[in-house]
Amino acid sequence: MFKFRLDAVSDAVFGIVLTLIVIEIKVPHLKDGFSEYGLQKGLIALLPLVGAYFLSVMLVVSYWYTHNFLFSLMSKTLNRGLMNLNFLFLSLISLVPFASALLGEYPQSKTAVIIYSTLIATIALSAAYIRNYIFDNPNIDNANRIELNMDEKDLIYGTVRLYIGLFGSLIAVAVSFWSTYASIILLIIQALILLIPGAVRLFSKFTRLDQIKLHPKWQEYTEVKQKVKSTKK
Amino acid sequence: MFKFRLDAVSDAVFGIVLTLIVIEIKVPHLKDGFSEYGLQKGLIALLPLVGAYFLSVMLVVSYWYTHNFLFSLMSKTLNRGLMNLNFLFLSLISLVPFASALLGEYPQSKTAVIIYSTLIATIALSAAYIRNYIFDNPNIDNANRIELNMDEKDLIYGTVRLYIGLFGSLIAVAVSFWSTYASIILLIIQALILLIPGAVRLFSKFTRLDQIKLHPKWQEYTEVKQKVKSTKK
Amino acid sequence: MFKFRLDAVSDAVFGIVLTLIVIEIKVPHLKDGFSEYGLQKGLIALLPLVGAYFLSVMLVVSYWYTHNFLFSLMSKTLNRGLMNLNFLFLSLISLVPFASALLGEYPQSKTAVIIYSTLIATIALSAAYIRNYIFDNPNIDNANRIELNMDEKDLIYGTVRLYIGLFGSLIAVAVSFWSTYASIILLIIQALILLIPGAVRLFSKFTRLDQIKLHPKWQEYTEVKQKVKSTKK
Amino acid sequence: MFKFRLDAVSDAVFGIVLTLIVIEIKVPHLKDGFSEYGLQKGLIALLPLVGAYFLSVMLVVSYWYTHNFLFSLMSKTLNRGLMNLNFLFLSLISLVPFASALLGEYPQSKTAVIIYSTLIATIALSAAYIRNYIFDNPNIDNANRIELNMDEKDLIYGTVRLYIGLFGSLIAVAVSFWSTYASIILLIIQALILLIPGAVRLFSKFTRLDQIKLHPKWQEYTEVKQKVKSTKK
Repeated sequence: MFKFRLDAVSDAVFGIVLTLIVIEIKVPHLKDGFSEYGLQKGLIALLPLVGAYFLSVMLVVSYWYTHNFLFSLMSKTLNRGLMNLNFLFLSLISLVPFASALLGEYPQSKTAVIIYSTLIATIALSAAYIRNYIFDNPNIDNANRIELNMDEKDLIYGTVRLYIGLFGSLIAVAVSFWSTYASIILLIIQALILLIPGAVRLFSKFTRLDQIKLHPKWQEYTEVKQKVKSTKK
Repeated sequence: MFKFRLDAVSDAVFGIVLTLIVIEIKVPHLKDGFSEYGLQKGLIALLPLVGAYFLSVMLVVSYWYTHNFLFSLMSKTLNRGLMNLNFLFLSLISLVPFASALLGEYPQSKTAVIIYSTLIATIALSAAYIRNYIFDNPNIDNANRIELNMDEKDLIYGTVRLYIGLFGSLIAVAVSFWSTYASIILLIIQALILLIPGAVRLFSKFTRLDQIKLHPKWQEYTEVKQKVKSTKK
Repeated sequence: MFKFRLDAVSDAVFGIVLTLIVIEIKVPHLKDGFSEYGLQKGLIALLPLVGAYFLSVMLVVSYWYTHNFLFSLMSKTLNRGLMNLNFLFLSLISLVPFASALLGEYPQSKTAVIIYSTLIATIALSAAYIRNYIFDNPNIDNANRIELNMDEKDLIYGTVRLYIGLFGSLIAVAVSFWSTYASIILLIIQALILLIPGAVRLFSKFTRLDQIKLHPKWQEYTEVKQKVKSTKK
Repeated sequence: MFKFRLDAVSDAVFGIVLTLIVIEIKVPHLKDGFSEYGLQKGLIALLPLVGAYFLSVMLVVSYWYTHNFLFSLMSKTLNRGLMNLNFLFLSLISLVPFASALLGEYPQSKTAVIIYSTLIATIALSAAYIRNYIFDNPNIDNANRIELNMDEKDLIYGTVRLYIGLFGSLIAVAVSFWSTYASIILLIIQALILLIPGAVRLFSKFTRLDQIKLHPKWQEYTEVKQKVKSTKK
């Protein structure tokens, strides 16, 4: 029951966040009376906000997939700690409409780009923490690799995904001191890699990140933990 | 699980969009102190926004039906690509409250009508693309005609539906150079045809569009594909 | 599936409406710098909006019960017409936050009271229409009295409920020409009768409305229709 | 069915409230043209609102747990009275975004702190009332202690939880006459105790509140009531 309602409230938050990002795009109010030209000028001034909207939607959607994987597939039971982490994650996602409006209104501002990128990095970091929590916590039943239909590589790709979100955003922070527009392009590339099916795999191969050695306990947990615990319950 | 949550987040988005269209209708603030006459004048100035609200609700609801058909009835499995398409579709739907406010505030503006109509055309185009994707993608199980309780004609009517959304909106763009009000009337007629039960059928017969020859693969897919794939899985 | 998603999108709309009514209550911005007195004065000016909020919540909740009864209990199947009526109903409910803000800002205004009351009357009217539609339409399976655990009187109380919403609001319109505050009190009384368990029953007895003779077809439908149709399907 | 939809509409409200608290954090509009320094100053001025956001999220989440416990676990049936209480509870939760914006904008104001704390106290009080209602009302089936996997102490901890919300907030009101910042710190401590797993237990032991004698009927109800009623139905 709790699990169902946690999904319900989370999907409500994601749905509202996706919609609220638009709310900051306000219809221009023309001071000097209506003219097609005046309206067009007002609308063109909104284009950065529209761009920020689509970037933010892509990033929020990519973390909806992550949320789905962590809370609906990987964890099979809940405890208060994991539910708190869920709400921490959602409270960061809820800040995206603000950060998106900030970036869309001041795309030339280092401050805006740094806040936006730092928020995305924090979301990625909290997702990584939640994944570790589910694996490490003895009170949380997690689905094993066979149930999730994943091979060993997929575990690595999942790790690379979170690295892309975390380090991609931190690099965007660093790059903003040189050019905020380069940072924004980096964020867009990051979003595309996270969304396009197979892109994380290609990226992992290209960067040799698929050669990472995962901590042995991860292998063990994903294979064995489930069996041990299913006998307990 | 994923399928259930995709529906949940989609319905949250539709519910919020339906409600947010109203939020742009702001209570008039009377500068010269309260008077019934002043308030009435302020409210009458809102009528175009109320009109745009009902037009937008009708169009959003008609695409809720389309979304329901494509994602809850026709596709029986999901992949990442189809989920991305779903969020692309939702991100366009989320722009309707903005476009509605724009149209309601500047119904005399070609720019506003063109933006509104182009958004609706893009939504229809993406729905058509999603339908093709579900039919063509070998990884997506789709319900066949018998399960959906559809006859051959219904397949054609579904195609006509998407044509009405796409070409109806493009014609509204063209007509706006002559009269924006004529465009708006066209959009209203389009919404009514899409909503009133049986109207698409009548429209198809009247315009002889029910004589369209669908590509043979469509026939084949809807009849056979299901069987082939059910043996694979 | 459709039925489940119709409930989902409807509950999203109700949830958002309940929450959005508050959004019109804006934190006062003090022009002359902060002072406790200034803030208190600003907050006291918001009290009518808070009052309108609670009145609107009560009315929206009472129509959530009606919606629940009509769509989740009484109708067992859906057709396109009934779904359209659902969205018509929801699009009226979505106007409540606007009407509430209008009433809260101008409680002394006949115009505001008339718009608010007319909206509530329209919602009641559309609910009555939906009830008739479910009973009368041969394509809609409706639960019979036994399934709904209702006796003959309950059918009458349901009718009285809709009368209270409809005529109560129309009387509030009429009374507003004498005093808008009397209208508001009438609306509050109406909301309380609709919400307090047993109040509709008492009201029916007191006003002798429980002596109404319902059209014979209603009796018949609620008892027999179900059986006839269950053999067809 | 009603129970499912009550959860759905409640989770929609919670999801929206969690998201709407952010909406009051507006991107600063720079009057004197853009400068990094000006934007940074504008953003720093928003920090109290961000603080109020996280405090409010913590409190709303802690009452989401309470709501979940009361409506999804403890009560097994619903009546109109309990549903009304649910909506009363939600209508108070819906006021949190307003109170949060007020506190974030005027953290130095006694009025703001008192309104915020009083709202939290009222939410706690209504939760306590709902708990009593579920226990006392003969028409509501409630889960017994064994089903809920609770021991006698847990019943006491649940009571302490509600005391913390109620008296913690009232103490914050009192303390605000000395220092509003002390009040805010008290509210943060309260939120942390309510959220951190095991904190309520520790707090109960530390304050000796775990020695409370509960009214004998509570013991009786939680153990016996269920059995008596399951034979009736």
